[in-house]
Amino acid sequence: MTKIAVLGNGSWGSVLGSMLADNGNDVILYGNNDSVNEEINAHHTNTHYMKDWSLNPSANATGDLETALTGAEIVLFVLPTKAVRIVAKNVRQVLDKLGTKPLLVTATKGIEPGSKKLISDILMEEIYPNDGDKIVAISGPSHAENVAQKDLTAIACASTDEENAKLVQKIFSNNYVRFYTNDDLVGVEVGGAVKNVIAIAAGILVGQGYGDDAKAALMTRGLAEIARLGVNYFGAKPMTFSGLSGIGDLIVTCTSVNSRNWRAGKQIGEGKTLDYVLKNMGQVVEGTTTVKAVHELCQEKDIDMPISEAIYRVLYENTNVEDEITKMMGRAPKPEIRL
Amino acid sequence: MTKIAVLGNGSWGSVLGSMLADNGNDVILYGNNDSVNEEINAHHTNTHYMKDWSLNPSANATGDLETALTGAEIVLFVLPTKAVRIVAKNVRQVLDKLGTKPLLVTATKGIEPGSKKLISDILMEEIYPNDGDKIVAISGPSHAENVAQKDLTAIACASTDEENAKLVQKIFSNNYVRFYTNDDLVGVEVGGAVKNVIAIAAGILVGQGYGDDAKAALMTRGLAEIARLGVNYFGAKPMTFSGLSGIGDLIVTCTSVNSRNWRAGKQIGEGKTLDYVLKNMGQVVEGTTTVKAVHELCQEKDIDMPISEAIYRVLYENTNVEDEITKMMGRAPKPEIRL
Repeated sequence: MTKIAVLGNGSWGSVLGSMLADNGNDVILYGNNDSVNEEINAHHTNTHYMKDWSLNPSANATGDLETALTGAEIVLFVLPTKAVRIVAKNVRQVLDKLGTKPLLVTATKGIEPGSKKLISDILMEEIYPNDGDKIVAISGPSHAENVAQKDLTAIACASTDEENAKLVQKIFSNNYVRFYTNDDLVGVEVGGAVKNVIAIAAGILVGQGYGDDAKAALMTRGLAEIARLGVNYFGAKPMTFSGLSGIGDLIVTCTSVNSRNWRAGKQIGEGKTLDYVLKNMGQVVEGTTTVKAVHELCQEKDIDMPISEAIYRVLYENTNVEDEITKMMGRAPKPEIRL
Repeated sequence: MTKIAVLGNGSWGSVLGSMLADNGNDVILYGNNDSVNEEINAHHTNTHYMKDWSLNPSANATGDLETALTGAEIVLFVLPTKAVRIVAKNVRQVLDKLGTKPLLVTATKGIEPGSKKLISDILMEEIYPNDGDKIVAISGPSHAENVAQKDLTAIACASTDEENAKLVQKIFSNNYVRFYTNDDLVGVEVGGAVKNVIAIAAGILVGQGYGDDAKAALMTRGLAEIARLGVNYFGAKPMTFSGLSGIGDLIVTCTSVNSRNWRAGKQIGEGKTLDYVLKNMGQVVEGTTTVKAVHELCQEKDIDMPISEAIYRVLYENTNVEDEITKMMGRAPKPEIRL
């Protein structure tokens, strides 16, 4: 039995925490919403995020970080990207006080605005400077709703330290979620962060009336440019992008009507403005932020990402979707594999 | 204006031929069905294969191979796998008589039963021994119906000779179909041939009631084992499988209800027998044949393809789908990238 602190009690945090409790671990969820914590402790439900679902009753919740971290051998981050750095600072203070050095696992996917840092970089900077081996990223095609229903799921767990990746694989795997180790930490993180931009593009194509061929082509060429960014800017390995955190996650995000990014893209493809779409969505559409960071990275390092750049122009420079498609189809002929 | 002979006047042959005529080439279709040839010449339609669609009127059809090949600079094979060798023998005889040496392009996807040869190997053996550079394979996510409607489509064109791949890219590309060159001829062929086995598996999962996570995991892990086969048996390059002929084609085949292989798998997942499904499908379900060749290859070279092997056992050894899933989820833990 391993004590695991899950930071973040939204849908994915709750489901992962409950799954880890099912696996026989001692799980405590930490979140800053008292009413959610109380509901989890009193009723083993989290109805704001997950309807018609109960957590494993052994998983408790707390609003006190020290309570969560005391005795924890693993700390699992399932926070929004923008909350990671501030919580990480607090975690560092508490760990210093406790004198413990748990393994850090991140399920958060994103690139920090401004710094353009991946989550593992933030955790390293704030908690374990010069000890990136204590960080594992998990990423793959996994909707909280599907895992809650015990749908078969496969997820990558990546670390620069093979033993730590294997430890997570062993503790997290069960008979419906299978974890695969990977030694390319940054590569596994990049796929999950950038996929939302391609999901917006997939939605736009469907909104414009294009069919299956176009969507498959977009996903494949989208993957090629995500790999190009990962390899050239973050030092990722090319093969990582054909795995669970790359194409696997991209498939789910671009084909599921549950994806907010895809839905936002579809409305833009149908002629709505970005302002209108964001106002009516009522929830964060991460890809609209990520595409700005990607645009800056492309400019900075001269990386060729034609799809992401077209989405940037459509969203923020008000260019016409049909003109962008014509331009893209008329680009100079290219070889397929070009990192 | 290039003279192109298209061998095969089914749906994909007709659509490719018409597209090449749209691109300004002199196209002649060859097929052994006289009534289809007559309909194409008289009415510019091919209603048996393509409803509500007309060919470019400049594309003619013939049942005479010598007429088709006379003056042809490119010969495009769009035949069923089982017809390729016999037609190739005839092509060789005619070319010897004509004294010409056109470029051969194959759009046929498959592995020859028995010999376990790819289409390019058959063409080389029968037409151009020791001159594989004159062969180009085209493969990617492309339904005839979508290309007929000018849906945006991207396709790989691969050859061991860069200039020949570029020539096909130049002649075949237009404002709605974009070709990307690739130097991995066998890799591009393997993806298209083996994807149908994974499509049956995807159908089975849906028939059993599994969701989006499971399908994305299956496609990603299916791609991993196709790559393993391609690299270890055929000498393909790993990165090819993350391209249009690999994951691109797999996405279309596993997510489109138009895929016969997927539909057959779904019925098997719902509890129907293979005999029943094949009888009621009324058309060839290629994956049920391909999986036998794949099974033999795995045995011969000791290649680990757990999904394909499970499909083989379900189809031909009558094992239970749920037992196979339980066995697969309980396999020893594995790293993600393992060729």
